[in-house]
Amino acid sequence: MMIDVEQAAKRLLQQDRVCILAHASPDGDTLGSAYGLYYALRELGKQARVRCADPVPSQYAHLCREYREEDFEEGFVMAVDVASPKLLGSLEAVYAGRIQLCLDHHPTNEGYAQESCVWPQAAATCELVYEVVRLLGAPVTPMVADCLYTGIATDSGCFKYPSTSPQTHRMAAQLMEAGADYSRINERLFDTKTKGRILVEQAVLNSIRFFAGDRVALITIPRSLLEHAQAAEGDLDGLAALPRMIEGVDIGLTLREKEEGIWKVSVRTGSRADASVLCGKFGGGGHARASGCLIRAGYDEAVRMLTEAAEQLLEPLE
Amino acid sequence: MMIDVEQAAKRLLQQDRVCILAHASPDGDTLGSAYGLYYALRELGKQARVRCADPVPSQYAHLCREYREEDFEEGFVMAVDVASPKLLGSLEAVYAGRIQLCLDHHPTNEGYAQESCVWPQAAATCELVYEVVRLLGAPVTPMVADCLYTGIATDSGCFKYPSTSPQTHRMAAQLMEAGADYSRINERLFDTKTKGRILVEQAVLNSIRFFAGDRVALITIPRSLLEHAQAAEGDLDGLAALPRMIEGVDIGLTLREKEEGIWKVSVRTGSRADASVLCGKFGGGGHARASGCLIRAGYDEAVRMLTEAAEQLLEPLE
Repeated sequence: MMIDVEQAAKRLLQQDRVCILAHASPDGDTLGSAYGLYYALRELGKQARVRCADPVPSQYAHLCREYREEDFEEGFVMAVDVASPKLLGSLEAVYAGRIQLCLDHHPTNEGYAQESCVWPQAAATCELVYEVVRLLGAPVTPMVADCLYTGIATDSGCFKYPSTSPQTHRMAAQLMEAGADYSRINERLFDTKTKGRILVEQAVLNSIRFFAGDRVALITIPRSLLEHAQAAEGDLDGLAALPRMIEGVDIGLTLREKEEGIWKVSVRTGSRADASVLCGKFGGGGHARASGCLIRAGYDEAVRMLTEAAEQLLEPLE
Repeated sequence: MMIDVEQAAKRLLQQDRVCILAHASPDGDTLGSAYGLYYALRELGKQARVRCADPVPSQYAHLCREYREEDFEEGFVMAVDVASPKLLGSLEAVYAGRIQLCLDHHPTNEGYAQESCVWPQAAATCELVYEVVRLLGAPVTPMVADCLYTGIATDSGCFKYPSTSPQTHRMAAQLMEAGADYSRINERLFDTKTKGRILVEQAVLNSIRFFAGDRVALITIPRSLLEHAQAAEGDLDGLAALPRMIEGVDIGLTLREKEEGIWKVSVRTGSRADASVLCGKFGGGGHARASGCLIRAGYDEAVRMLTEAAEQLLEPLE
């Protein structure tokens, strides 16, 4: 059942032993939501814990600095920023079917919880959690503010993505006034790269190729790259956006080698080409600006097929 | 003489033929301030023009889309975001000594204008200009909002830099509500790279070297690079920050070749080393976190001298 934010806050206010679930491969929004709510509930004298199938990545370690694991029997199970039970990873088997409340901002939320409050217009679930915290009457301590700011900043691309709204900015202003250490958080989230990421970027930039008078750009991520760069899976985040970022490029192609002769292809386009049409030719699909497909071929053959199809798709420039 | 924002608005309200000066090598803040004010003054039925020693870079072309150059005799000359007349470039000779009003946010503003209004706590001069526009009673049209949002977003690093304040966010929220096309502006400013910039980044990442157990990182920008990458000077912006961004790096060094055997060195440090001490050893200086110096030596010798001095400066890790 869908409920509004007032009802969600009311439900939470009745609970004393709360388990908060974050999604697997956690990002700043699911962790900021979970820990922000944890600290707020603790301020109200309630018992709470956070559960996540995977460890907290180092750039979010600041969210856990005042967290204490306590022994108590869970009376209420809720999920934050989790659109589907599948995203709970190994915790799905433990909690699926008995999640009582879900707070989320994904329009694709499956409504799997007994009660769900979804704000699809919010840039981050943390915007919704902030409102819940206020309605709970919990003090927004600097620790709570750090958590909610972290979630809002990560999911909005530091206020860069189209999902950013006036509300996003106003909440950021209030969280800064509540003591969020935004300057250090921003540096950590947006101005720090691992050595592995640097080596990944180096290799990917070296792989860049241009076609169709520079209107198509292609990068390649071979299987050997992660090992070569001593990089983690997370060091590949966002790379598929790179080729389309280049001025004048209408179609950006990313070929990632899954196995010998099997390429996972990500296509990003501007307004002059439809990515889903291109991927449809190879049995894939997605959205007009971002789609994917799988190609089974040698590297040269895969590049030839893709770039030829891409070129055919391009409308002539005015 | 220093005046407050109310006085600045009052002075402007009395004027009918306004010339607004932007600084040379213009950025988003000086252009956003100048054009934002231009459109606001035009809304009030006043004549106005914008003057800048250099052309408007392509990423800011949207600021001029409704600009019309008119023929009128300048009755009032003002400067925006210009800390010193020297920064006017070729316009210094034309206007220095007869600038009546300056709006700025640089704490280093030299007070060269007859009257100056400076907001050193603002992330951007556009924050001050926004307040002036409101006090003028001019409507904040979508065009004005685009200009002021552009300046605020560029100078705050899209709300990432420590200079960002709650006021910065609140003004962004209001400008979005006034119709600023923030999504396209952000994409243009922060998610678009020229092909030249991509080739520059490729070369710079390939040049990266690590020393002192990865606590010192060094990049090299040879003279040939701009030509090789068919890049513009602006494509080198911000590169000196790159080596220090890497996790674990305490000292980031950038060697830019000025002439054969002459290196302009930029040093960036974290809290574990003082950049000005390092540069002081080579006759340079600056701030604790960012300094510079000039080294005359062959490449290998320059690298040896710098990295040895850097290593000596490093405190042992706990």
